[in-house]
Amino acid sequence: MPKFVYDFTEGNKDLKDLLGGKGANLSEMTNLGLPVPPGFTITTEACRHYLAEGAVPAGLAEEITEHLTALEGTMGKKLGQADDPLLVSVRSGAKFSMPGMMDTVLNIGLNDESVLGLAAQSGNERFAWDSYRRLIQMFGKTVLGVDGELFEESLEELKHAKGTTDDLDLTAADFQKLVGTFKGIVRERTGREFPTEPREQMDLAVKAVFDSWNSDRAILYRRQERIPTDLGTAVNICSMVFGNLGMDSGTGVAFTRDPASGQQGVYGDYLQNAQGEDVVAGIRNTVPLADLGQINEPVYRQLLQIMETLENHYLDLCDIEFTVERGKLWMLQTRVGKRTAAAAFRIACQLADQGLIDLNEAIHRVNGDQLAQLMFPRFDAAAPKEQIAKGMNASPGAAVGKAVFSSEAAVEAAARGEKVILVRRETTPDDLTGMIAAQGILTSRGGKTSHAAVVARGMGKTCVCGAEDLDVDVKARRLKTGDVVVQEGDVLSIDGSTGAVYLGEVPVSASPVVRYFEGELAPADGDELVQSVHRLMVHADAAARLAVRANADTPEDSERARRFGATGIGLCRTEHMFLGERRQLVEDLILATSDAEREAALDALAPFQKEDFHGILKAMDGLPVTIRLIDPPLHEFLPDLTELSVKVALAGADASDKDRRLLEAVHRLHEQNPMLGLRGVRLGLVIPGLFAMQVRAIAEAAAQRLSEGGDPRPEIMIPLVGSIQELEHAREEAEQVLRSVGGEVKALIGTMIELPRAALTAGQIAEGAEFFSFGTNDLTQTTWGFSRDDVEASFFSRYLELGVFGVSPFETLDRDGVGRLVRIAVEEGRRTRPDLKLGVCGEHGGDPESVHFFHEVGLDYVSCSPFRVPVARLEAGRAAVETDGSDSR
Amino acid sequence: MPKFVYDFTEGNKDLKDLLGGKGANLSEMTNLGLPVPPGFTITTEACRHYLAEGAVPAGLAEEITEHLTALEGTMGKKLGQADDPLLVSVRSGAKFSMPGMMDTVLNIGLNDESVLGLAAQSGNERFAWDSYRRLIQMFGKTVLGVDGELFEESLEELKHAKGTTDDLDLTAADFQKLVGTFKGIVRERTGREFPTEPREQMDLAVKAVFDSWNSDRAILYRRQERIPTDLGTAVNICSMVFGNLGMDSGTGVAFTRDPASGQQGVYGDYLQNAQGEDVVAGIRNTVPLADLGQINEPVYRQLLQIMETLENHYLDLCDIEFTVERGKLWMLQTRVGKRTAAAAFRIACQLADQGLIDLNEAIHRVNGDQLAQLMFPRFDAAAPKEQIAKGMNASPGAAVGKAVFSSEAAVEAAARGEKVILVRRETTPDDLTGMIAAQGILTSRGGKTSHAAVVARGMGKTCVCGAEDLDVDVKARRLKTGDVVVQEGDVLSIDGSTGAVYLGEVPVSASPVVRYFEGELAPADGDELVQSVHRLMVHADAAARLAVRANADTPEDSERARRFGATGIGLCRTEHMFLGERRQLVEDLILATSDAEREAALDALAPFQKEDFHGILKAMDGLPVTIRLIDPPLHEFLPDLTELSVKVALAGADASDKDRRLLEAVHRLHEQNPMLGLRGVRLGLVIPGLFAMQVRAIAEAAAQRLSEGGDPRPEIMIPLVGSIQELEHAREEAEQVLRSVGGEVKALIGTMIELPRAALTAGQIAEGAEFFSFGTNDLTQTTWGFSRDDVEASFFSRYLELGVFGVSPFETLDRDGVGRLVRIAVEEGRRTRPDLKLGVCGEHGGDPESVHFFHEVGLDYVSCSPFRVPVARLEAGRAAVETDGSDSR
Repeated sequence: MPKFVYDFTEGNKDLKDLLGGKGANLSEMTNLGLPVPPGFTITTEACRHYLAEGAVPAGLAEEITEHLTALEGTMGKKLGQADDPLLVSVRSGAKFSMPGMMDTVLNIGLNDESVLGLAAQSGNERFAWDSYRRLIQMFGKTVLGVDGELFEESLEELKHAKGTTDDLDLTAADFQKLVGTFKGIVRERTGREFPTEPREQMDLAVKAVFDSWNSDRAILYRRQERIPTDLGTAVNICSMVFGNLGMDSGTGVAFTRDPASGQQGVYGDYLQNAQGEDVVAGIRNTVPLADLGQINEPVYRQLLQIMETLENHYLDLCDIEFTVERGKLWMLQTRVGKRTAAAAFRIACQLADQGLIDLNEAIHRVNGDQLAQLMFPRFDAAAPKEQIAKGMNASPGAAVGKAVFSSEAAVEAAARGEKVILVRRETTPDDLTGMIAAQGILTSRGGKTSHAAVVARGMGKTCVCGAEDLDVDVKARRLKTGDVVVQEGDVLSIDGSTGAVYLGEVPVSASPVVRYFEGELAPADGDELVQSVHRLMVHADAAARLAVRANADTPEDSERARRFGATGIGLCRTEHMFLGERRQLVEDLILATSDAEREAALDALAPFQKEDFHGILKAMDGLPVTIRLIDPPLHEFLPDLTELSVKVALAGADASDKDRRLLEAVHRLHEQNPMLGLRGVRLGLVIPGLFAMQVRAIAEAAAQRLSEGGDPRPEIMIPLVGSIQELEHAREEAEQVLRSVGGEVKALIGTMIELPRAALTAGQIAEGAEFFSFGTNDLTQTTWGFSRDDVEASFFSRYLELGVFGVSPFETLDRDGVGRLVRIAVEEGRRTRPDLKLGVCGEHGGDPESVHFFHEVGLDYVSCSPFRVPVARLEAGRAAVETDGSDSR
Repeated sequence: MPKFVYDFTEGNKDLKDLLGGKGANLSEMTNLGLPVPPGFTITTEACRHYLAEGAVPAGLAEEITEHLTALEGTMGKKLGQADDPLLVSVRSGAKFSMPGMMDTVLNIGLNDESVLGLAAQSGNERFAWDSYRRLIQMFGKTVLGVDGELFEESLEELKHAKGTTDDLDLTAADFQKLVGTFKGIVRERTGREFPTEPREQMDLAVKAVFDSWNSDRAILYRRQERIPTDLGTAVNICSMVFGNLGMDSGTGVAFTRDPASGQQGVYGDYLQNAQGEDVVAGIRNTVPLADLGQINEPVYRQLLQIMETLENHYLDLCDIEFTVERGKLWMLQTRVGKRTAAAAFRIACQLADQGLIDLNEAIHRVNGDQLAQLMFPRFDAAAPKEQIAKGMNASPGAAVGKAVFSSEAAVEAAARGEKVILVRRETTPDDLTGMIAAQGILTSRGGKTSHAAVVARGMGKTCVCGAEDLDVDVKARRLKTGDVVVQEGDVLSIDGSTGAVYLGEVPVSASPVVRYFEGELAPADGDELVQSVHRLMVHADAAARLAVRANADTPEDSERARRFGATGIGLCRTEHMFLGERRQLVEDLILATSDAEREAALDALAPFQKEDFHGILKAMDGLPVTIRLIDPPLHEFLPDLTELSVKVALAGADASDKDRRLLEAVHRLHEQNPMLGLRGVRLGLVIPGLFAMQVRAIAEAAAQRLSEGGDPRPEIMIPLVGSIQELEHAREEAEQVLRSVGGEVKALIGTMIELPRAALTAGQIAEGAEFFSFGTNDLTQTTWGFSRDDVEASFFSRYLELGVFGVSPFETLDRDGVGRLVRIAVEEGRRTRPDLKLGVCGEHGGDPESVHFFHEVGLDYVSCSPFRVPVARLEAGRAAVETDGSDSR
């Protein structure tokens, strides 16, 4: 039979799977000799058994009894003992932190008798009765499922009757009366008496904590945070200590370093005569932790000593919860603490400088999301600002513009070249055009999974949502907050990284980290942050096994990508070269009615293409450049069907001949589902000469670079291949053109893997491909069967709410579905062709979590937008040290 | 070292892999003691080696020498021997018949000397020189790659100079002269002399046959017929016999039974003084085989004896090629012969009656495509008909209508309620609307993979294509053929099963086989065909492991499906119930601006739904009915965006308020790619109450059936699920509704597997599904990334031409891609839930080859349109006896 209960002296910090995070760290502190109230932990395994079988495992009750008896021995008193009761807390604690999601019951062990003993022992009758009513209240709500409002209302009524609003005005007698009322509520609502037997209280509380693993909110939270659903929670049973026994008692939180800057020092808050929740609830003002030095110097010094111990032990910033009970310090919790992005980089380098960790561990301590945050433009910290509200930091960035209150107004203003912030109570799919037109989006309702938040993140657009202080009046085109009124046209500045909303224009400046990547700021000239970033990037590059390329379609983008550290272009989209003044030539191609006309149109396009390719090959001299042949359906280059139909209909007999011909072509090429239509390799096989023109332009551009002494490395990529036969036809044509251009020009020929069938038949397709590039955007669309344009606005926010996704599969690669296809294609492609070059050019190439996946499956490179290149480089290094590196602890 | 050469005495009919079909059957006949000219076969293995390495395997030359020496011994003369030459043919022969695809060279062994010996031995100088010039011509073209036209032109010139058009007017001297001319052509075109060394001739011819495996047309043919590309061909070297040595010689073809009716008897053609090709080429009129009885009675009797021997040996209809050389019969080829659909059924039953085969083997001998052909309506055989042309039988059926020559005319006529035949030279994607509007399609150009043929088959529309005798003048709106002129509006009748084109209306009648399935014709009252079909269907049903259900949305269709033998409804589409008069209610639902309006709209729809379900459950009493909740995007129920935009724009200020509101809704719901949009389970999760209304209607309909004493078996199917989370939400809602209706109502809850992700995560999804139904239409669309509506017309014909597909993946399931996903889902779904019920409801459920696949992977049932149910039943039985049945030979 497995062991279901661990005394705090038996566990350690590496047993999080079994004891949960809280339990493992309580054990760790106990073993370090720190003052932790004695207690024990019931394992997650017991919970899993309970959830699966509907009953606690055999033997658990006996094991608990054994540990409780030992605890009672240690404490010298028995649970609920009438004259001097041992009280315990029963707290949940899972492997992953799920703050506030699951249940806790304090003061277990109180009943009508022991409350008197507690009063006598503490010398504080009011405290004892308050503790008792809290027990009934928490127990009633959590364990017995009574509506918590009923208890709150009784409390409010009592205060109202006494003419006060402050709990502190209630007396022992008041609380005693409340105990009676609360018991009545329990009786009335549950048809049973509040259980006064201490052990029964404890057992029921344990089960309630188990059950709380599957509460709706916990399930939703896990779905959103992608915490596995079958882990279960541990239960910590800990002897109670009280910070509310008088002014010699108190409770506090502390950090071993400044979580904002990373500086070592004394950071935290303390509150005298209070319990844990009171600090968080903000009922009274806390004092800075340093003041504890005046209040109780020995305790303060002991705490500093413990903080040093913990940091040297955990080798990282720790956050701590503690309680002082009548002058004695008790540690209630510790864990590795959260920190800002900048602090994460600084702390990692500081710890490396102190020799506490090595550089492998240092890059493990930071991540790409943090780096991306450091790269957003920011509001000038020194500039004067008038903050008028704070909402949720839904999508990062700093946006400034005139407030507009409708999508139409946003579109109109943007058409006039004005920058705007779209302000709505909440957004709906109808606001999409306005969101596209705006610099940023501000809403007064909705959380991080609201429509506004989801869509804005998808667009990479700054967004602050749920700024509840704002009273948004869309009809009147204004918002109010306190005395401030913002009319349409007034300027707002919103900080998507902090959630702050400022009145007026706040100056925006480029991040020093970006200036460093751009080469405008030498590492040595930068501040500690820039230096830290530099050191960690150098190490990540050295460690990485994945190369990082960029998606870029112009020489300018290619140059920036190179400055940002890209070692090639992974996706150069040629259709972008068909826009602007060249669109006319594409129209000619589409309207061609004879071979001669079609060939003339292609001949006219060729020199432009050659020039484009020459510029990019020059910018990327010596590095590979993957050029994708034309991908979108041709009707994308024509006017919109509905608009043109209306135009021609309104013009009637006066409609121009050109418009009529265009309309005829638009009709002919119209597709119900263009994403699933005549595009990619299909176009290449159906329209004679189209691919050949592009391949010739690539080959001639490369030949020119060779004649200039350059080192061009073009790679020709065939899009939307679903079968080896398609690839073979396109490949034969391309090879023929390459041979006809002759000379020294060489180019790899490969394909996108962006259709499920391409992945499923990758073993065959690899026969005709020298490289694969996973087009994970399209692969996600076809694997899930949804079109990004259509569905992000229409149902993604609902899906996030429902927990169907933890995160949009367009942001982070869906491992189970799309990832499985990638894995199949990698394995079977390499089986056919061991030297097959493998990369990814979807936007996932710049997403931290996805980069780890691509490392895991063994790709050769990822490719992403130039701005994401540093993020991908860092994550490529992190992935390498995490899976390949030596254990650095 | 493997053995590369088999004497005809060494092989047998089961060695087709190694010896090809022709070689294996020549050996078989030799072993049966039939008069086969001696010879030997070079194996496909030698060919594969040659194709892989570019050279014949070591030892092959020696082995050939050995066998040639033995052959020379048998024949008593040497290859090319001057005074009495042994001549041989060198013929290809692969495992699968590839008629006309690969090469043959006859008369190997002739040169300037042996031609004189042949003349002397045959006593026919003209024959000898004719044979020699044929050798040079065939060898020049096939082995040396000289343009065959050059030889033809010389021959024509000679005839022209002699003032004749008939080869028979040419003399020995003429042919001798032609030999000189042909040698000159070879010299001029290849820069070498025609090789006169007999063994060199033979070796070069063998290599040419090997090479012909990879000729363009052979590759294309294999792609289309889905013959594996790596089999290679065998080469048969056979001593020549001549049917053209005088009137006591001749050549013929024979069948052991009538391939049209299946009757045993004497069927075939004979041509005196002729070689094999002459029979096929139709240069002279053949005589019925029975006439051979008069010409040479002993030979005739010998032939009949041989035919009986062969049929009893092969246990099937055989077709035979033979030659009579100066009164001696030689067998040149035999194989199991092709036959009509009706003959196939009759022959299978006859053979079973004769005790030659058992019923398992009998159902193996027929197939669903044949049964489908027997079910098409047909032109009344007895009715007078004026056939004016014959084209290719591109898509079966009998269609009658007025000829129209443009897509517009077809659409206009159809709008007036007229039936039309669309006549075009060839069709293009622009003709799509016309093809939809027409009863049938007739073209004068293009083969079975032309646009017209492919699209028509996809639509199930009758089509005759490539009727080359028709001179179609689209501008003048008429066609001519001979003296007949057909103007637009004149009636045509086309037979897509035979390719016949008739002038005027030919009466159409239902097939007796359909009348049998409908129950209108008892088996005993039917003809031999109906009785044969009945016997084989009964056996197939008994053998089948796959059940067959139907896709049906109305009580009427359900009843027909039941009559046709369906044992359930596999797909009942509920959205079809939202059309007609109820469309208004759906509009109300879409335009609802409040919860109350939405609920009112749903409440109004509910009684209709309940009525629909009640009718279907009644029709299928006691059998399962799988009802799919609403699947298409809601905008499908609204007017078209472009049409409505034009209408509102033209109306200007006069546009109705309703139209404006509708246009607003159409805009709001518009999707770029509706197939990938807000539909299926996504609608269910986004629109409160929609799925619940449907589930309630199902439950209430079932409750009513129960109260009527019925046995309703509804199964609720959630469409477009991509993740277990979606299914769980929909399932919870459905279960809640079912509980609320209460009573005895039970319903399985399951899901469509129609997205790649659903298949890839089927192991998870099975946790929430009691059944899976593979929606292979959508699964094909998403796996390949093409939309059927958009691409069949735009590039499928090109893809079939290029050999990307052998057959449209919408007709026959793509095993490598889509099939792999099905397999994954079956295995992983069953692993999670061993009693998971598995079916398919895409159109592939009625496709013979696909049914075998579904049997193989272990589905429980297929579901298809009612009319395809018998086809699926037959194929389900065939699949079972082929994979599971005892060997019945």
